[in-house]
Amino acid sequence: MDFNELRKDYLLDRWVVIATKRARRPTDFAIKEKKQQSKTDTCPMCPGNEHMTPPAVLLYLKKGKALQKTRDRNGVRSREWLIRVIPNLYPAFTPPSSKTEARRIGRSVGLANAVGHHEVIVESPCHDEHPAGAGSQQLLYVVNAYLDRLRALSRKPYVKYVSIFRNHGLEAGASLSHAHSQVIATPFIPKTVEEEMKASKRHFEKKGRCVFCDILAKESKSPRFIVQNSDFVAFAPYASVNPMEFWVVPKKHQATMLEMSLIEAKAFARMLKTCLSGLKQLVNDPPYNYGFHLALDRKARKYYHWHLEVYPKLTTWAGFEKSTGVYINTVTPETAAETLRAKLKNCPKS
Amino acid sequence: MDFNELRKDYLLDRWVVIATKRARRPTDFAIKEKKQQSKTDTCPMCPGNEHMTPPAVLLYLKKGKALQKTRDRNGVRSREWLIRVIPNLYPAFTPPSSKTEARRIGRSVGLANAVGHHEVIVESPCHDEHPAGAGSQQLLYVVNAYLDRLRALSRKPYVKYVSIFRNHGLEAGASLSHAHSQVIATPFIPKTVEEEMKASKRHFEKKGRCVFCDILAKESKSPRFIVQNSDFVAFAPYASVNPMEFWVVPKKHQATMLEMSLIEAKAFARMLKTCLSGLKQLVNDPPYNYGFHLALDRKARKYYHWHLEVYPKLTTWAGFEKSTGVYINTVTPETAAETLRAKLKNCPKS
Repeated sequence: MDFNELRKDYLLDRWVVIATKRARRPTDFAIKEKKQQSKTDTCPMCPGNEHMTPPAVLLYLKKGKALQKTRDRNGVRSREWLIRVIPNLYPAFTPPSSKTEARRIGRSVGLANAVGHHEVIVESPCHDEHPAGAGSQQLLYVVNAYLDRLRALSRKPYVKYVSIFRNHGLEAGASLSHAHSQVIATPFIPKTVEEEMKASKRHFEKKGRCVFCDILAKESKSPRFIVQNSDFVAFAPYASVNPMEFWVVPKKHQATMLEMSLIEAKAFARMLKTCLSGLKQLVNDPPYNYGFHLALDRKARKYYHWHLEVYPKLTTWAGFEKSTGVYINTVTPETAAETLRAKLKNCPKS
Repeated sequence: MDFNELRKDYLLDRWVVIATKRARRPTDFAIKEKKQQSKTDTCPMCPGNEHMTPPAVLLYLKKGKALQKTRDRNGVRSREWLIRVIPNLYPAFTPPSSKTEARRIGRSVGLANAVGHHEVIVESPCHDEHPAGAGSQQLLYVVNAYLDRLRALSRKPYVKYVSIFRNHGLEAGASLSHAHSQVIATPFIPKTVEEEMKASKRHFEKKGRCVFCDILAKESKSPRFIVQNSDFVAFAPYASVNPMEFWVVPKKHQATMLEMSLIEAKAFARMLKTCLSGLKQLVNDPPYNYGFHLALDRKARKYYHWHLEVYPKLTTWAGFEKSTGVYINTVTPETAAETLRAKLKNCPKS
């Protein structure tokens, strides 16, 4: 069997990928000092080093004035790419090798195969072209690559959710500093998203409205509002668990990013750049994580509303947070929003 | 009003303390470099520096051969202590100043006062007397201090839970390196413990047995077993979310540590030292967090079973974990247990 194990906690409805395929010895931790690979090291994501990675599953190539979407074939690695999507060398989730292996998750058993996909989206040929400083065309390519992989992976019969996320900086878990995002397709809906879905379904059944549309209406006029453009609003959520946390939410009710028009995708790319460059200037390029929440299930389309959650990594969750699931945040969301708003006044408008 | 705010997420049943009382400006993060205070700095927990902290709420003093339990009175700080428990200078939860202020948490409103207590247990007058290397008598004092504060705080009418936890090392969130634990008393049962309680209640109603007693019977004979003594078993849980995670569980069915006999408390202190010194030797004194899970509610006594969860801090939870609530663990619990067992063979027996 070629899968990692998905195991459920004795009591909690919480799943963990036990990465048996890349299992490490505990002593590895003692020897290895954490160090982010630098530009001067050989970066496997930089142009010219394509042989250091598996063949690309998606490439954006520049052909004259046109953009060509393709993939590496027969093991030959293409050059001159603008976006390069590759399988993760140490995948947490792996595709089934035969139809019989794509088993459904068994909650009662507490064990399943970690069937799915785990990919890396190299966001630019330029090592340091992170969203806060990326060219607007390049950032639009990144957003389009998110959409292309979301579309392709969500069609697989064994995929129930597609998590698209980004780790920025060593302290936020990015071991490679080349600008990149990751995509993990899972055979179940993750705990946090599932809880959100249940609650938003209850809200819809009770009030006949999408809870996120209600939140948006309220936070657009609250002291937690940060910035908006034609199609998106950014605000610091009322019960932020991370200092300086903010969310980007589409004004239109949409369950997934796949419902975005090209104009909306452009507006989203601009909003992402605006907020991340504001954060970068305000807190001196802090480490952060971001992740999309979305609904693939048709039934959820009425009541679920996709959004991006951005978690700056400015504190350490310690014994209290980890053992209780209760959080302590030393920056109020109102302060987070106020300082980001003030910083954005001095930034180019989106 | 002199409370921090407790806020509930829009959708998740997840609470956060918005620490308005110790609110920081976002720019603080940019300026401040994280640095653990060293022995050579003035340590507010070291003997002679008692004036740097609030008066102690509990002191163990050595009086000849007897141990005296007392507290600082009239602002005079006692010296020559063995254990010193003080209010946290920047408390997340604070006691009510009048009866009317001790309001119950309102889940529907999503807002409450962070009523409770937040204390620091200074574990030894010796700066570096951490559990892995502590004298057995001193470690028994620490365990007794846990019990004394648990007993005292759980009697308060506005306290629904008492979380006792320890952060070891800067990467695990310990900004002060003097050996210490913390106690937080909350006006509600925290999310993770509540979920465990609900599931263990369901198990009891279905099978007539405590789920932890069942887990213990199984894991005592599984490849995840680490070590046992007269009254306690240590094992790596089946779905560990942290590399090298282990739990210490009492063999007797007990809902809280308050049910321990003195002999059992001694056995617990020995087990704690055995496991933490094994971890220290195996992974070169890694940062870790630990936290107790327990039940104060009489009704839960039948089906809930207290235990200690120890989380070594060897990886960084990144965008995937934070946005989905699904975890990736690169050390299998079986490997964790096997390597800890092997290391403990060379350690003094507990």
